[in-house]
Amino acid sequence: MKSIVVKNPDELVIEDRPLPAPAAGEVRVRIKLAGICGSDSHIYRGHNPFAQYPRVIGHEFFGVIDAIGEGVDSLRLGQRVSVDPVISCGHCYPCSVGKPNVCTSLVVLGVHRDGGFSEYAVVPAKNAFAIPDNLADHHAVMVEPFTIAANVTGQVNPGKNDIALVYGAGPMGLTTVQVLKGVYKVRQVIVVDRIDERLAMAQKSGADTVINNREHSLAARLIEEGIQPTLIVDAACHPSILQEAISLASPAARIVIMGFSSEPTEIIQQGITGKEISIFSSRLNANKFPLVIDWLTQGLIDPDKLITHTFDYQQVADAIEVFEKDQRQCCKVLLTFPS
Amino acid sequence: MKSIVVKNPDELVIEDRPLPAPAAGEVRVRIKLAGICGSDSHIYRGHNPFAQYPRVIGHEFFGVIDAIGEGVDSLRLGQRVSVDPVISCGHCYPCSVGKPNVCTSLVVLGVHRDGGFSEYAVVPAKNAFAIPDNLADHHAVMVEPFTIAANVTGQVNPGKNDIALVYGAGPMGLTTVQVLKGVYKVRQVIVVDRIDERLAMAQKSGADTVINNREHSLAARLIEEGIQPTLIVDAACHPSILQEAISLASPAARIVIMGFSSEPTEIIQQGITGKEISIFSSRLNANKFPLVIDWLTQGLIDPDKLITHTFDYQQVADAIEVFEKDQRQCCKVLLTFPS
Repeated sequence: MKSIVVKNPDELVIEDRPLPAPAAGEVRVRIKLAGICGSDSHIYRGHNPFAQYPRVIGHEFFGVIDAIGEGVDSLRLGQRVSVDPVISCGHCYPCSVGKPNVCTSLVVLGVHRDGGFSEYAVVPAKNAFAIPDNLADHHAVMVEPFTIAANVTGQVNPGKNDIALVYGAGPMGLTTVQVLKGVYKVRQVIVVDRIDERLAMAQKSGADTVINNREHSLAARLIEEGIQPTLIVDAACHPSILQEAISLASPAARIVIMGFSSEPTEIIQQGITGKEISIFSSRLNANKFPLVIDWLTQGLIDPDKLITHTFDYQQVADAIEVFEKDQRQCCKVLLTFPS
Repeated sequence: MKSIVVKNPDELVIEDRPLPAPAAGEVRVRIKLAGICGSDSHIYRGHNPFAQYPRVIGHEFFGVIDAIGEGVDSLRLGQRVSVDPVISCGHCYPCSVGKPNVCTSLVVLGVHRDGGFSEYAVVPAKNAFAIPDNLADHHAVMVEPFTIAANVTGQVNPGKNDIALVYGAGPMGLTTVQVLKGVYKVRQVIVVDRIDERLAMAQKSGADTVINNREHSLAARLIEEGIQPTLIVDAACHPSILQEAISLASPAARIVIMGFSSEPTEIIQQGITGKEISIFSSRLNANKFPLVIDWLTQGLIDPDKLITHTFDYQQVADAIEVFEKDQRQCCKVLLTFPS
């Protein structure tokens, strides 16, 4: 089989590898579609602190089960599945409190173990989630990106009276906007970004208000309109954003960060405690595949608004380059595999 | 009536004031006991950013209703009551989500409005909570300090499998320890402080492990014992503690801060998001009086372990000085008023 392998930072090849056999409790998935995420690009460029090389990247993927290991129900053969990349032990403290995404022996497909940019991938059977017949393939491959938004929002219980501010109109920000509006019916969602074309995508995904903070001061605009956000999501992930969010937030607000910066962030505790703000962080997803599949089935979220490009997997290097460089036109890039 | 008034920073007097009449919806409380809190000392010394002068300080107080305003049930005359110092509007966003303690028009008795260090105080009837006959006066006056711990713990849902680390064995830390052990039955509570006598008080209040971090490195000790706290409460409130807490915390841990420092704190977001840590803050209390009265009635918490000194209210200046200076022997200082 052909696999997309990052052998070392900045060295990406398409390799011939032997077809793997599923071990007990595993299934083999013949991949049909995969999505490119920022973290694939970070592994490729050597900027992911958790990556090990060589690595078959890719953690957003959809396909069909074509082989099963011992102990797996044979009815699963031929099943269309989306794969949760989070592999957890099930018994450590984080697992015991419903956070397998930070399991003490966490393995992430495409990061710590070979992932889905490959003609075939072997994964734990319980990580392969059946996709209903009425969900299209290109929606099924978008389950994982929406689980990121499900994980963010699941921690903060958004409500109809929330005024949400989302920093960053990239894929993480836009899926969050769709979930805030489509699922939680949040009253007002404001999106801030530095690129007008991305802000247009945010409006398409349901943002009520967009602000270009390259051109305007976000703080001045919110103060002018008397807006104090009650829920703030930092999907732009620059270390300076957190303190701005703290100062703009309403009393009793919740803030969610997703950033992985190792640079120090300066915050003022008086600004947090004075307003009794809560700060959540969100990494990967905690058992959110069933929830997102349900949202897709109900039509509460729409992946079509995010998919801007599709490439044959053999053009993966070009695809990643478009993803990295064309921030004005590009949001989600899919790779197709021969079926 | 006699009232203890901070006229300006560092200027505390006992003044004769006219006996106030309760307005509609208010009750007048003849004070029997009041407790000294760090924030009283901060207002006295000019270190509370929210204080306005002159001010009758005191927000921990207990007494008997001796007059009622229009619309208040006359059966309340003679009722023994503890007074919640948090006065809120009831309809702003924070109030609507159960956080009257950060109401957009918050008024705190003893801070923004005259408080309880006085022979009489007039307060909203709904802020005066009836005390059951079987609760002693010196327990009733301790309701408010325990609401601070109820507010901290109420945000993070402590469980029997938690390993809690509490920074600071002052009154806020010790009430928190009692609630973690007595109410939530947390498996292990570790307390860190720089004073041995305070650590002894922490043990008396139920701490399983105490660490003097003037003598030992907390990080080294926890690493040596293989302990990663799942719940961390910063009741010492030094701005440097938060980043240490982040680095010591278990994946999926919750951290609660209570500090009001205006100095910057440096934190590393990778350390937060990598472990999906949540950071809560806690200010005053959100409707916790009924809960704490119930805990006291059930005997789940024991104020006797915290009360170290009692002074006549006329010795208030001495009492505050003992509270400020004698950190080895002093925890909670009460003031008695003539009854």
